[in-house]
Amino acid sequence: MFEFHVTAQEPHSAAHTGVFETPHGPLLTPVFAPVGTQATVKTLTPRDLHELEASLVLANTYHLYLRPGPELIADFGGLHSFMGWPGPLLTDSGGYQVFSLAQMRKLDADGVTFRSHIDGSLHRFTPESTIAAQEALGADIIMCLDECPEPLDRAYNEDALRRTHAWAARCQAAQRRADQALFGIVQGGIFPDLRAESARTLRALDFVGYAIGGLSVGETKAEMYATLEITVPELPVGRPRYLMGVGAPEDIVEGVARGIDIFDCVLPTRVARNGGLLTRGGRMNLRNAQYAADPLPIEPGCDCYACQHFSRAYLRHLFKAGETLGLHLATVHNLRFVLRLMAEIRGHIAAGTFMAFRAQFLTEYQLPNQAVRHAQHAARRRGETAVRKADR
Amino acid sequence: MFEFHVTAQEPHSAAHTGVFETPHGPLLTPVFAPVGTQATVKTLTPRDLHELEASLVLANTYHLYLRPGPELIADFGGLHSFMGWPGPLLTDSGGYQVFSLAQMRKLDADGVTFRSHIDGSLHRFTPESTIAAQEALGADIIMCLDECPEPLDRAYNEDALRRTHAWAARCQAAQRRADQALFGIVQGGIFPDLRAESARTLRALDFVGYAIGGLSVGETKAEMYATLEITVPELPVGRPRYLMGVGAPEDIVEGVARGIDIFDCVLPTRVARNGGLLTRGGRMNLRNAQYAADPLPIEPGCDCYACQHFSRAYLRHLFKAGETLGLHLATVHNLRFVLRLMAEIRGHIAAGTFMAFRAQFLTEYQLPNQAVRHAQHAARRRGETAVRKADR
Repeated sequence: MFEFHVTAQEPHSAAHTGVFETPHGPLLTPVFAPVGTQATVKTLTPRDLHELEASLVLANTYHLYLRPGPELIADFGGLHSFMGWPGPLLTDSGGYQVFSLAQMRKLDADGVTFRSHIDGSLHRFTPESTIAAQEALGADIIMCLDECPEPLDRAYNEDALRRTHAWAARCQAAQRRADQALFGIVQGGIFPDLRAESARTLRALDFVGYAIGGLSVGETKAEMYATLEITVPELPVGRPRYLMGVGAPEDIVEGVARGIDIFDCVLPTRVARNGGLLTRGGRMNLRNAQYAADPLPIEPGCDCYACQHFSRAYLRHLFKAGETLGLHLATVHNLRFVLRLMAEIRGHIAAGTFMAFRAQFLTEYQLPNQAVRHAQHAARRRGETAVRKADR
Repeated sequence: MFEFHVTAQEPHSAAHTGVFETPHGPLLTPVFAPVGTQATVKTLTPRDLHELEASLVLANTYHLYLRPGPELIADFGGLHSFMGWPGPLLTDSGGYQVFSLAQMRKLDADGVTFRSHIDGSLHRFTPESTIAAQEALGADIIMCLDECPEPLDRAYNEDALRRTHAWAARCQAAQRRADQALFGIVQGGIFPDLRAESARTLRALDFVGYAIGGLSVGETKAEMYATLEITVPELPVGRPRYLMGVGAPEDIVEGVARGIDIFDCVLPTRVARNGGLLTRGGRMNLRNAQYAADPLPIEPGCDCYACQHFSRAYLRHLFKAGETLGLHLATVHNLRFVLRLMAEIRGHIAAGTFMAFRAQFLTEYQLPNQAVRHAQHAARRRGETAVRKADR
C-alpha cells in the first residue's frame, strides 16, 4: 500500500508523472484535490465529481471535528461512506484553520486550545488528538499537526518550526491505523535554511509523503517558487510531494515544473461562487455587463456540462438573479478546467513536451491583474478614456 | 397541435388520465409542473429534471420580464433554448406576482401599473403586453392575465371577475403565435355562483385549456375542494384543466379525484430548501435532532439520487452546515416524490384502482399539523410530558 512509482520524468525540469496507490484506488500524479471542507465539495454531488474526473478529494478535520464530529462519521464507516465518495480522500490536521482563528486560540508546546467559530465552545488539538480525529474520519492520506506562521517573520518561523518538528514525531508515534498514509509537513516560511532544515528533519522521520506548507499565505509568487526550488531537492526521491493550499492554474504549472505531485486549493471553487470563471485566457468575471447577451459558452471547446449546455448570458442571468444553479455550473466549469489541466500536464510530461506546454500556458493565461492591464491597454488603443467598470 | 385525449376514466370519480400534445412533446396527465421561477428550477440542472422524469416545467413571466427581459430570451430562441430545457414549458401571465405586490401596484380597467421588486422601476402589464411577453418567451402553454382576489371577499371577487373576463377576451384577441396553447383562468373565490359564471363565460371564448386560479390562497381545504366540485363540471369535456399553484400531495390526490389534469406549485421545492422532506408518512423536518445519527435514507425505497446515496444523518449535516448540496438533494427527493406520485396516480387510474389508492394515500400521509398531533398523542401514550422540541 501507498507505493509511489514515478512513471515519466521530464528531462529539463523536476516535473514527473507517477502513480500513488491508496486503499481507495490509485492516484495519477500530478493530481489536484478539490476541497470538500464540510464533507461536500460545495454545490457538487459525488457523481458530479466523478464526471469531472476528480480522483482525490480533501476534507477539513477542523470543520468536521466541530460538526458533525469524528465519532459520528466513524459510526457511519468513515468519511468515504458518510459523504458517498468512493475514491481517495485526504484530510488536513485542522491546524491551519485553528491558527487562522487569530484571537480565538492559545498555543503551548503540547498543542493548541481554541474556541469554535460556530458556537464559541472551547476545544483543544494536540498532535495525538488530531491523529485520532483523522483516524476516525478514515481518509487515505492524513496530515501531521503543524504550525503555519506568517511566512516573512523569521523569529516566529524559527520558533514554530521547533513545535512543528516535535509534533510531527508525536503524530507519527500516535498513528494506529496502517491503512492511512501520514504525511509530514515542511515549514520555514520563505527562509531557505529553515526550509532545508525542516525537510531534512522530517526526512529523518521517514514519512510516506511530504507536504510543503505555509505557502500562498502572503509571500510573492517569486518567493513561493524559490521556496519550492530550495525545498523539493531536500525531499526524498520516490515519495509524493504535496503543495498544500496552492491551486491557481499558473501555480500548478510552476509547481509541477518544480517537482510537486499533489495540489489542493479552494481557489477554483471559491472564485466560481463569486462568478469568476477560469479559461485558458485567464479569469473572466461572468457578472460583467459585457456577457449579458453573449451566446458563447464560458470557454468554447470545454467539455464540461456547463459549457456544453449554456450560454454566458444564461449563466450571468443565474448569477444576477441569485440562483444557486449558477454557483453549481460555475463550480463544474472551474473544477473541470483544473482537472483537465492536470490531465494535459500528465500527458505532456509523458510525451516530453511539458516545457513547451508550460511556456505556452503561461503566455496565454493572464493573471487577474494582467488581464486588467491588458483591458486598459486595449481600451486606450480603441481610443476609450476608461475601461468600462464591471457592473455588479 | 394541442390535442387532448382522455385515455382512461376512473368510474367512481372525475379522475382521468390523458395525453396533451405540445410542440415540445406529449404530456401524460395528470401532470405536475415543477416551478422554475427565474428560468431555473432552483438548484437543479435540466439533466436533473429529466432524470426526475419531470415533463412540464413552469416559469414566471413577471420575474423573467424584469430580468433578463423577454427580448433577450427571444434573441436566444426562446426560453427552451435559453434555459436548456427541451421539454414542454408553461408560463403564467405575471399577474399573480403583480397582484401580490400589494403596496406597489395600481389597477385600472386597462391593466396594472407596478413597481419592480428589484429596483423599484415603474412597469405596466396589460392583457396585450403579457401575451406579447409570453410570445417572446415561447412556452408551450401560456396564460391569460387575470386578477386573483382575496377568495372570501365577495364584492371584490365580483368586481375582479369582470376585469378577468374582459382581459381573457383581450388576451385571446392579442395572441399572434399559433404554436402556444392559451389557457383561460376561472376565478370567483369560494363563491359557487361566481365560479360557475366564470367557467361559463370563459367556456364561451373556447380556450385550448382552462385553469382554475385563486385557490390555495387563504381558503380552507374543504372550501378549495368544494370549489373544484362546482367548477370542473362547468368546464368543457376534452380540454385540459389546470389547478394553478396547488401541489401539496394531499391536494394533488384530491384535485385529481375532482378532474384536474395539470398542477404546479413551489411547495415541494420550497419546503425542501427549508429541510422539509415529503414522504408517504407525511412531511419530515430533516433539521430535527432525531435524525442526527439516522443511517436511513430520507424515504426507504425511494429511487431518487438522494435516497440511493445518502443517510438522513449526512443530509441533516449538510443543512446544519449551510451547504447548498443539502438544498439540492432535498429538492431532488421532494420533486421525485411528487413526480412518482403522479406516475402512480396515472397507473391507478388506468388500472381502475385510483379510489383505493386515494383512500390509502390520504390515510398514510399525515398533514404537518396532523403529524404534530400524532406525535403529541404518541408522547402522551408513552407517558412523556411533552413532545421533545425540534432543535434548530
